[in-house]
Amino acid sequence: MKKVFILSKRNIALLGLGTVGKVVYEEINNNVSYVLVKDITKKRNIQLSEKIITNDFQEIIQDKNIDIVIELIGGENPAYNYIKKSIKANKNVITANKEVMGKHGKELLNLAEKNNVFLLYEASVAGGIPIISPLVNDLSANEFSSIRGIINGTTNYILTKMSNQKLELSDVLKEAQDLGYAEADPTSDIDGFDAQYKISILSRIAFKSDVSIDQIYVEGISSIKSKDFGYASELGYTIKLLATASINQDKNLLVKVHPALIPNHVPMSSVNGVLNAVEIKGDLVGTLWFQGAGAGAKATASSVLSDLIKIQNTEKKIDINRKNTYEITSMSSHICQYYLRLNVSDKPGVLAGIAMEFGKKNISISSVLQKDLHDDGSADLVIMTYPSLERDMQASIKQIKNLDTVFNIKGMIRVESYK
Amino acid sequence: MKKVFILSKRNIALLGLGTVGKVVYEEINNNVSYVLVKDITKKRNIQLSEKIITNDFQEIIQDKNIDIVIELIGGENPAYNYIKKSIKANKNVITANKEVMGKHGKELLNLAEKNNVFLLYEASVAGGIPIISPLVNDLSANEFSSIRGIINGTTNYILTKMSNQKLELSDVLKEAQDLGYAEADPTSDIDGFDAQYKISILSRIAFKSDVSIDQIYVEGISSIKSKDFGYASELGYTIKLLATASINQDKNLLVKVHPALIPNHVPMSSVNGVLNAVEIKGDLVGTLWFQGAGAGAKATASSVLSDLIKIQNTEKKIDINRKNTYEITSMSSHICQYYLRLNVSDKPGVLAGIAMEFGKKNISISSVLQKDLHDDGSADLVIMTYPSLERDMQASIKQIKNLDTVFNIKGMIRVESYK
Repeated sequence: MKKVFILSKRNIALLGLGTVGKVVYEEINNNVSYVLVKDITKKRNIQLSEKIITNDFQEIIQDKNIDIVIELIGGENPAYNYIKKSIKANKNVITANKEVMGKHGKELLNLAEKNNVFLLYEASVAGGIPIISPLVNDLSANEFSSIRGIINGTTNYILTKMSNQKLELSDVLKEAQDLGYAEADPTSDIDGFDAQYKISILSRIAFKSDVSIDQIYVEGISSIKSKDFGYASELGYTIKLLATASINQDKNLLVKVHPALIPNHVPMSSVNGVLNAVEIKGDLVGTLWFQGAGAGAKATASSVLSDLIKIQNTEKKIDINRKNTYEITSMSSHICQYYLRLNVSDKPGVLAGIAMEFGKKNISISSVLQKDLHDDGSADLVIMTYPSLERDMQASIKQIKNLDTVFNIKGMIRVESYK
Repeated sequence: MKKVFILSKRNIALLGLGTVGKVVYEEINNNVSYVLVKDITKKRNIQLSEKIITNDFQEIIQDKNIDIVIELIGGENPAYNYIKKSIKANKNVITANKEVMGKHGKELLNLAEKNNVFLLYEASVAGGIPIISPLVNDLSANEFSSIRGIINGTTNYILTKMSNQKLELSDVLKEAQDLGYAEADPTSDIDGFDAQYKISILSRIAFKSDVSIDQIYVEGISSIKSKDFGYASELGYTIKLLATASINQDKNLLVKVHPALIPNHVPMSSVNGVLNAVEIKGDLVGTLWFQGAGAGAKATASSVLSDLIKIQNTEKKIDINRKNTYEITSMSSHICQYYLRLNVSDKPGVLAGIAMEFGKKNISISSVLQKDLHDDGSADLVIMTYPSLERDMQASIKQIKNLDTVFNIKGMIRVESYK
């Protein structure tokens, strides 16, 4: 089911119609006046009116009705040029472009401030994970001492596969390309440039210092061999491409991207596949941890569209918020597995009696532990059920309490499902 | 070193001077005109001018210079009354009060909107972890299907101790009280009410539905026995007090707080001690994970002060942002452990030669693995060093490459420190 954003105006131009662009377009097509593409004749598996598709950026710039430009082309040029021109034309800009924001962020943010428009770029780092806005807004009272993260999903997918399946980079890379997790030209990911752009963006915000790309040490993953994972494991470590920005012993800022051995007992070692994670240390907040999908069309669109809602809400022109009206339901309709600890008679037939009561309510038993024979001839019986309705469980418990063989139900704990 | 907030005005009233209040006051005392306390004669280990301490709330309400009230009294009354009166007097309010926001959030937020003032409450849930603002702002494009979290540090500390040390609740509770992790009257934590208030706040935001306190199922931890952890462990689980809000099979919203068995392989099972963690599932963003200090004076103050900066920045009256000017440093001064994989001659004295080169730069070796004798008589040698300067390591590597016994340095990976 398609969600409806309650927007009344066609005030948005979308630049680029790749995987992220398509998801964004599908969510807000009622409000998009232009979709800029390179080749207007290309076949696309998306319904697009001919009226809105264009390859002429000037047309967008000159249209006074457009006050929001969403840039999802990627790469430095022409994206940088388009963003700059949009800001100069007093249009708000939302971008997912880490290369442009990494290389030209300072200039563009200053330009946006001067022109009194928004330049929002939550999607440029760690896809759907809110990390830029928390640093800018929600944690602003802190002095930060370090940020470190796994912020390139492609290399993390590759390293995870190399580690788990004892494969070399070249083998895994081909598979990652076939699955769409790596680009045809994987240089930007493999050599660490993608992570370099992203850590540059985070450093600028957290440390309020302008870090130019060439001040960031970068080393990719191409020299990592399968056997390194084996040796690292013997020593108690795994290997990840880590991007870090931290205040060092001399109170200077060091920003760097390189493969790192991570101790197996810390959470960063368990961030696998295309997941991203960022750890932040602040003087007030201590250590914070953010983890989620760092890439993917929908996760990236989550950040782009949330940035859009921020602009719309702040301008208070129109209400883009959707209202839900969920019915609040009671516990009785909840379904889960149950853990029960009973004090029972140590005689045959106890379990049969309990199972019969459960059976009347279609509750099945998945495990049984019989434990701790007490001096009084009673025993602990632990039962785990299959998923059941709370109301059925409560009804069964009442009946089971009445059984001669059951002295007491000592504990009932619900099992949280993680399917 | 005390941080300086560049504020020019005395426009803040602080209500309450407990542990959080003290940290907040120390950060912004230049801007506080009033500190409201119950007993003005009480001895406090904090420097406070007699002019600003008061027990008369009316004085604050009537002072037109006060445009921000920070409520850190806690509990329902008189905090609720003070917040309401402050909003009605057109003052912005920041609060850490989960009970007031849980029980009266809808009314107070509507009142704040009507009076065109801020009511910010990031600190009311999960202490320093940004969770309210990400839900309100950064993830607003999502339809959420579930929120679940460990959002009460006291009970999580108790359950962790019960599990690790095979103790009963009563024993651990006393220790937690002595350490200041539990209150003299622990009812609100132990019986789940604290978590109930917090999940009510998160539900209202994420599901855009008003959930009243009495619509939330609540069950505390008092029936959990030490032996339950042993049985749960045999079955592959641990036990946590979990607060959840989720859309169920009938598309209704179920909000509940109760002890839950958590499978040992999911991250929620490793959230120990006073840590808090919140997992969010959205249709676009997928599964997100936030973890950090859920309580504590400084972590809570992080949220309160960041809310304050938001208000100040939005009003653009004054610049509260501190500017840092960190020197950006280069890799050469970085210190870490190093993993080296070398291809060496399989003869005695190889390691001695390498160790001597390291010694010249004061680099010590912590571990050595000798592996994989190859057909050509060479062998893999893996060396882990103690923390060393990058420039020393690079210099040593140059020398080691020249050793007759070393054919090649095949890999050098830095070890990330997690001390």
